[in-house]
Amino acid sequence: MIVILKKEHDTHQLDELRRWLEGQGISIQVNEGVQSTVLGLIGDTSAVDSDLIEALEIVETVKRVQEPYKKANRKFHPEDSVVDVSGVPVGGGHFAIMAGPCSVESPEQICTVAAAVKAAGANLLRGGAFKPRTSPYAFQGMRESGITLLLEAKKQTGLPVVTEIMDIAHIDAFADVDLIQVGARNMQNFELLKELGHSKKPILLKRGLSSTLQELLMSAEYIMAGGNENVILCERGIRTFETATRNTQDISAIPVVKELSHLPIIVDPSHATGFSRYVKPLALAAVAAGSDGLMIEVHNNPAKALCDGPQSLTPAQFTDAVQAVQRFLAVR
Amino acid sequence: MIVILKKEHDTHQLDELRRWLEGQGISIQVNEGVQSTVLGLIGDTSAVDSDLIEALEIVETVKRVQEPYKKANRKFHPEDSVVDVSGVPVGGGHFAIMAGPCSVESPEQICTVAAAVKAAGANLLRGGAFKPRTSPYAFQGMRESGITLLLEAKKQTGLPVVTEIMDIAHIDAFADVDLIQVGARNMQNFELLKELGHSKKPILLKRGLSSTLQELLMSAEYIMAGGNENVILCERGIRTFETATRNTQDISAIPVVKELSHLPIIVDPSHATGFSRYVKPLALAAVAAGSDGLMIEVHNNPAKALCDGPQSLTPAQFTDAVQAVQRFLAVR
Amino acid sequence: MIVILKKEHDTHQLDELRRWLEGQGISIQVNEGVQSTVLGLIGDTSAVDSDLIEALEIVETVKRVQEPYKKANRKFHPEDSVVDVSGVPVGGGHFAIMAGPCSVESPEQICTVAAAVKAAGANLLRGGAFKPRTSPYAFQGMRESGITLLLEAKKQTGLPVVTEIMDIAHIDAFADVDLIQVGARNMQNFELLKELGHSKKPILLKRGLSSTLQELLMSAEYIMAGGNENVILCERGIRTFETATRNTQDISAIPVVKELSHLPIIVDPSHATGFSRYVKPLALAAVAAGSDGLMIEVHNNPAKALCDGPQSLTPAQFTDAVQAVQRFLAVR
Amino acid sequence: MIVILKKEHDTHQLDELRRWLEGQGISIQVNEGVQSTVLGLIGDTSAVDSDLIEALEIVETVKRVQEPYKKANRKFHPEDSVVDVSGVPVGGGHFAIMAGPCSVESPEQICTVAAAVKAAGANLLRGGAFKPRTSPYAFQGMRESGITLLLEAKKQTGLPVVTEIMDIAHIDAFADVDLIQVGARNMQNFELLKELGHSKKPILLKRGLSSTLQELLMSAEYIMAGGNENVILCERGIRTFETATRNTQDISAIPVVKELSHLPIIVDPSHATGFSRYVKPLALAAVAAGSDGLMIEVHNNPAKALCDGPQSLTPAQFTDAVQAVQRFLAVR
Repeated sequence: MIVILKKEHDTHQLDELRRWLEGQGISIQVNEGVQSTVLGLIGDTSAVDSDLIEALEIVETVKRVQEPYKKANRKFHPEDSVVDVSGVPVGGGHFAIMAGPCSVESPEQICTVAAAVKAAGANLLRGGAFKPRTSPYAFQGMRESGITLLLEAKKQTGLPVVTEIMDIAHIDAFADVDLIQVGARNMQNFELLKELGHSKKPILLKRGLSSTLQELLMSAEYIMAGGNENVILCERGIRTFETATRNTQDISAIPVVKELSHLPIIVDPSHATGFSRYVKPLALAAVAAGSDGLMIEVHNNPAKALCDGPQSLTPAQFTDAVQAVQRFLAVR
Repeated sequence: MIVILKKEHDTHQLDELRRWLEGQGISIQVNEGVQSTVLGLIGDTSAVDSDLIEALEIVETVKRVQEPYKKANRKFHPEDSVVDVSGVPVGGGHFAIMAGPCSVESPEQICTVAAAVKAAGANLLRGGAFKPRTSPYAFQGMRESGITLLLEAKKQTGLPVVTEIMDIAHIDAFADVDLIQVGARNMQNFELLKELGHSKKPILLKRGLSSTLQELLMSAEYIMAGGNENVILCERGIRTFETATRNTQDISAIPVVKELSHLPIIVDPSHATGFSRYVKPLALAAVAAGSDGLMIEVHNNPAKALCDGPQSLTPAQFTDAVQAVQRFLAVR
Repeated sequence: MIVILKKEHDTHQLDELRRWLEGQGISIQVNEGVQSTVLGLIGDTSAVDSDLIEALEIVETVKRVQEPYKKANRKFHPEDSVVDVSGVPVGGGHFAIMAGPCSVESPEQICTVAAAVKAAGANLLRGGAFKPRTSPYAFQGMRESGITLLLEAKKQTGLPVVTEIMDIAHIDAFADVDLIQVGARNMQNFELLKELGHSKKPILLKRGLSSTLQELLMSAEYIMAGGNENVILCERGIRTFETATRNTQDISAIPVVKELSHLPIIVDPSHATGFSRYVKPLALAAVAAGSDGLMIEVHNNPAKALCDGPQSLTPAQFTDAVQAVQRFLAVR
Repeated sequence: MIVILKKEHDTHQLDELRRWLEGQGISIQVNEGVQSTVLGLIGDTSAVDSDLIEALEIVETVKRVQEPYKKANRKFHPEDSVVDVSGVPVGGGHFAIMAGPCSVESPEQICTVAAAVKAAGANLLRGGAFKPRTSPYAFQGMRESGITLLLEAKKQTGLPVVTEIMDIAHIDAFADVDLIQVGARNMQNFELLKELGHSKKPILLKRGLSSTLQELLMSAEYIMAGGNENVILCERGIRTFETATRNTQDISAIPVVKELSHLPIIVDPSHATGFSRYVKPLALAAVAAGSDGLMIEVHNNPAKALCDGPQSLTPAQFTDAVQAVQRFLAVR
């Protein structure tokens, strides 16, 4: 960390700052110049709050040379991480296709969709059991029994399952879930992240609607700091002023995260766009930009389609999209 | 809710839609026109997901006539709500000034600040015990023992206390807290909101960094639907492209929320701006726009100031700001 | 346009509204219902300001059934438009690669880069002559003489040229320019758009930093309404809260615009990301999502690189990117 | 400007950078440290593009110590500027109230509104003659003849007039206009700004919908660099994700601009909110935050109200708002 002091600064305050930093085990190298005085902070500065230092009267500006995340940082782990999800590798050249319905609704529904997405080429089954809904009056998911149905579909198809956790109190219900999803609204639910850090389960961490990529990596760091390094990141659209799509898929998240971190990153074009007709082009864009996988909503009853989200593909549309994905994967 | 169908629509699909809606206890009135067919949905549509209907092939557009929140809605509760926080009324003309340090650090610190903010005119004491921090390596607050110290400061000063809850597992530690804060990052932690709905404690619900005002009201509805109507809302800045301030204080939130809801709304200019020098003008703006109160960070040691946030006022600055607030309250 | 009236509305005001609309040649069909009264407006409503109607006390909501753009609208022109840029077709399956330096600096520079990008596969030469710069003290471009140099490079390579116009007063200097660019900052410079509508030159219209896609199409409509239908749209990144990239490339702009309009749309990943290392993945994402072309900055002097933007590729990097683009084009 | 080099850097590239900077008249002071090498750039760095330097391989980061604007900078002009608008001072404690209709429509309309706003306390008359409209099919204003009518209203009431210029080609029509407005969409129309810099007319420069405050000050600098220091800034709402208001009034713009610049800044709550019912509270918030004035839309025909914007106040509402403004001015 480099601290640039104002040209004229109070030496008493500078002494206080030095003592405070040294009390945290950081040594300081001072460069006195004509235009400014520059402090080089040497040691582990990841716990130092740069905002606090920047707020001091004597400080002109502060610049981190090291990113505040360590375990998620590619600098200290140059190779791509590969996360093993019950036998399905994700990352490092292994492409994951997670598909399934928005909500688990019945044994027939989830087993039918599971069979369909497996036939089309999916290698993981998604399905919502605990559902975060904006309205308290909306269907909140089948909860524990939804997970039971997902596991039944896993038994029939062999596909490992991914589903969202909303509160650490429910953790027992996730004992046999293969990949635990932390949703966008809980990306900074730090107590939940800490608890998942004590697990060994693979975690799918979705980016918050207005989270920066650095914040996403810091949330991954919460999980990893606890000892669980099996983290897969997911870009699912950010909130902007544009209303033609539900969210804006931040396609640059892929190369940026791949540069900064060794963790796999996948894309969820269904939530990013909110409309099924845009899912295929945005899935292909994710492949082209280097994504390690996709998460796509597929519904069960194209004729009825009433209880499925507007962003869900029919099995036929999904099959078509996967075939295009495979063509693009072959040339990237 | 009004559903406008496309000019040419499949009558089979229309029948399906009608059956599905009627199955939810909603009756339908059809207006056939030259340019379009319009369905009027009569009954309680608060649980109907308008996005699902809008996604149907036969539907041109959907418009809610009733807002999806009921208990928080001013239409059904025209009078301003007044929330009683251990004897301090908030809302309906009663102005609250909540002040205190970012983090509780020691008995001396919190009691000194408590005495100072009380002397300046604060009527509630704030202080962070459980701290949501972006980095897992940063100080996470004194947690339970921080609450103990807050309650000690309450005993000395008589000021009711407000502090943030981060997980429902900690609820026992909040038994004597007067006002429980749900932070911006947890505004859509729906499981936490549901649990707080079963309490009778007053809740301070902060707006998420990228939450719309309707989403804020829906989160309040989660708490109220559980039976706890003691909700105070708080605008604390939204995330935009501007970087001169940490967040952008959305001053229009006050008149908009006051129109839509009967709940009190206060403003936290400390977090909205991130810099102490902007706190006073933005506090005054909040008063002028009709806010029911303020939450302001005040630190203990203006000489040292190293462990306090860059947005904290000194006691002297806070006293000056409160005097200006009172001048403005007198003429609004 | 459909106007939904409030349940209880003043009939005097309704009469006024009807007279006002009929005065604009619009006929009105009234659907009286139990829950609401719905007006269907029949005729050309493109000049009717829906905001004005929505603001009336008697009106609950207004919904346009027809988009307010006509000439740019795919509904009235289902086939993809192909814009001919001096013999290079753009759109309708014809992929354009526009490349060249941020600024034209000297005859050697522009001719060297032009030869390099042509060899790599570009079919149009870009180069800034009039430069919009945030600072009045920064280099403002070679202006008229920059265009002269561009045309010299065109003579040597045969590549048609594209360069930005900043004011209608400079139009004479653009007489031999093949494709006139309207930059992001001028997307709603309506007087400039109107003047370009009287030309027959192809226009490259870049999306504003915070313009919605509907606003982009309305700006295209300004040009087309004047009689010039040779418009190519360009997504070049929007402004969001994320700071890891200079702007956020809105990849969904491509399928959304292709659905709404018949006009070609290309992508400028250089400006969207601001960093050369992200240009290739974002260019490929654009191809995958269905873009009709790319605009990429390529600089002349990889050893020096001091006067070129941080987003510029070297000729070797550009060659590599074009080869990947061609692989992806072959499978899309 | 301070340039921090990477720990290991190529000395050949460093020599190139030094030569390039020295070629621009900048001298360089080198601080060699253990952790990094820091260059202090001494001289006028306002024309140096910090992005170009930051993009060099050898550079870790760049920090401007001086803001890139000089004439607008409070550091070099500590006193508040007071802009004289034909006898009405704005800034430095002089509060301006600019009011009038969205569009000038007829002699009766503009003269009636002018008399009404003067009676209520306005000291400047606003009215649109050249109207920037999103749609080419919408009313584009009365243009030159609108200005003639404004000047007629000025003759009757004595109120100086403010109206928007959209293209430098129209400048002759503005010869007798007292304050020339540059609208949000033209804030970075640099050719227009340069031309207005050659005038001596006071300029009202509105912030762009997604412009940072630094960009606003850089656009003011364009005008001032040409010799015209009579610039008044105007916050009129920025574009965010929130849809309850048309734009989001960035109230923090006032204290931030007042810290960075000596120029007056006013607020336009009519455009910031888009709804007349929010104009009064947001006008009062602007006063409380330290604004030097207000610009408010007032329409002529409260009974009809069809051709006026949804954000316009009636004369009675405007009178009420001005009385509240004056109460707040008295205590700030």
